[in-house]
Amino acid sequence: MERKMDIAALEAFIAKDFPQVGDDFAIHTSSDDVLTIRLKVTEKHLRPGGTVSGPAMFALADVAIYLAILERIGPVALAVTTNCSIDFMRKPAANTDLLAEARILKLGRVLAVGDVLIFSEGSTKPVARASLTYSIPPEHGVK
Amino acid sequence: MERKMDIAALEAFIAKDFPQVGDDFAIHTSSDDVLTIRLKVTEKHLRPGGTVSGPAMFALADVAIYLAILERIGPVALAVTTNCSIDFMRKPAANTDLLAEARILKLGRVLAVGDVLIFSEGSTKPVARASLTYSIPPEHGVK
Amino acid sequence: MERKMDIAALEAFIAKDFPQVGDDFAIHTSSDDVLTIRLKVTEKHLRPGGTVSGPAMFALADVAIYLAILERIGPVALAVTTNCSIDFMRKPAANTDLLAEARILKLGRVLAVGDVLIFSEGSTKPVARASLTYSIPPEHGVK
Amino acid sequence: MERKMDIAALEAFIAKDFPQVGDDFAIHTSSDDVLTIRLKVTEKHLRPGGTVSGPAMFALADVAIYLAILERIGPVALAVTTNCSIDFMRKPAANTDLLAEARILKLGRVLAVGDVLIFSEGSTKPVARASLTYSIPPEHGVK
Repeated sequence: MERKMDIAALEAFIAKDFPQVGDDFAIHTSSDDVLTIRLKVTEKHLRPGGTVSGPAMFALADVAIYLAILERIGPVALAVTTNCSIDFMRKPAANTDLLAEARILKLGRVLAVGDVLIFSEGSTKPVARASLTYSIPPEHGVK
Repeated sequence: MERKMDIAALEAFIAKDFPQVGDDFAIHTSSDDVLTIRLKVTEKHLRPGGTVSGPAMFALADVAIYLAILERIGPVALAVTTNCSIDFMRKPAANTDLLAEARILKLGRVLAVGDVLIFSEGSTKPVARASLTYSIPPEHGVK
Repeated sequence: MERKMDIAALEAFIAKDFPQVGDDFAIHTSSDDVLTIRLKVTEKHLRPGGTVSGPAMFALADVAIYLAILERIGPVALAVTTNCSIDFMRKPAANTDLLAEARILKLGRVLAVGDVLIFSEGSTKPVARASLTYSIPPEHGVK
Repeated sequence: MERKMDIAALEAFIAKDFPQVGDDFAIHTSSDDVLTIRLKVTEKHLRPGGTVSGPAMFALADVAIYLAILERIGPVALAVTTNCSIDFMRKPAANTDLLAEARILKLGRVLAVGDVLIFSEGSTKPVARASLTYSIPPEHGVK
């Protein structure tokens, strides 16, 4: 896979493009196929009982695929989510960061599709899975 | 439709059960089939450009179906989202509240399924649609 | 809603475009917002016990949205499904035709989104709901 | 992973349980995490142009997860699909068998969730991805 942005460039982009939530996320690792994003869990992400909320997991999945797309096509602020299907499978561990593994399955002319698995850090059983479709400005898609 | 909770009871429940986000939402109307929930849009829900973020719309859809289920089965804090599929179709109007119309399609023994349409207030074209499945504690489901 | 094809034109299109399955479907009614398609249930659609199979319901939802799009944009054979999320909620009645009510929620430049409710004929409780996204050749989309 | 059924038992089950379509499918391989199912593509699965139809790919994804669940819990005819979200990403190769790789992500007390990637045989780029939820009779689920 050719990369248009490295980890430092992705982190700078997210800090600038998501000023209200950029601090919540960090790039954990980038391998050939998988970009792993950390949600730094704090009070605002929790529901009573200490478990991470559904919207916080959705936001993590959404950001993870967005960054995995940007890694391949460069800093295109106009890519937008058109669809997400998410399954909540297990209760996250209390007060534990989440890690989202994002894989891009298709990067086309106008649509990109990716899959995400979300884990409580230190666990091998996913708490959620999601698939997302992004619409890409035509001039930035892959012919 | 028989109701187990009226609007005042639902608003009291959400204030208590979602202390961190309860102020963001209000019951707009409840008719026989449709419960309409308002997202009181503030700075924290916005992306650059003034448009409401995807996670904020997801949270609105999730709360709307949750309350529509509680309206029918009573204050059962243990109902949990198991799946959501959401389509983002149009850019929301800038700095405008969102209204989510929630309809329950199935209320079974262990699963409930509902549909949501989200509009910018004053517009008739939906900005998003979502379908959600909730898992219900067996003793509270409908036989 | 402006219509580019009437019921007779849609039925002729499906007979020609889907030679292997066209006989399975018929246009039931077309109102301003809703196109209703009938699946003429026969032996090949059934699972043991006489209930209609999941793939047969998927096919019905897919055809219903396809025809509802064509009704608005004309006979464009190149529209293709990109995503479907379907919930199976109740067991269909045995040996009974299914009716699918299709509504188009967005008809954009390159994507169309629609919702489908499927009923066993004579029942008011939906057996399935689905949402579908179609990719439309750009020259045929709505600006 | 403990297996309750081997490949021969799964093939016997499908022949008996799906008399109308059992001949369309074959178990390709079973590894620790992945069960791979073949769709033996014939005329009835094709759309004009020789490409495999959407409903045929849906049926393949549905059968693949069903068999992956049975491999783990044994021959339980009453497991039923409750949700499927499927993305069609590329046009399948003409007149070529499809292979579906099914992974079970959760096997719970009443729900099982799995992911499927579908490939044209001989290609490494997926033509479709799907996630499915099955409802399991409580006495057969995993405590």
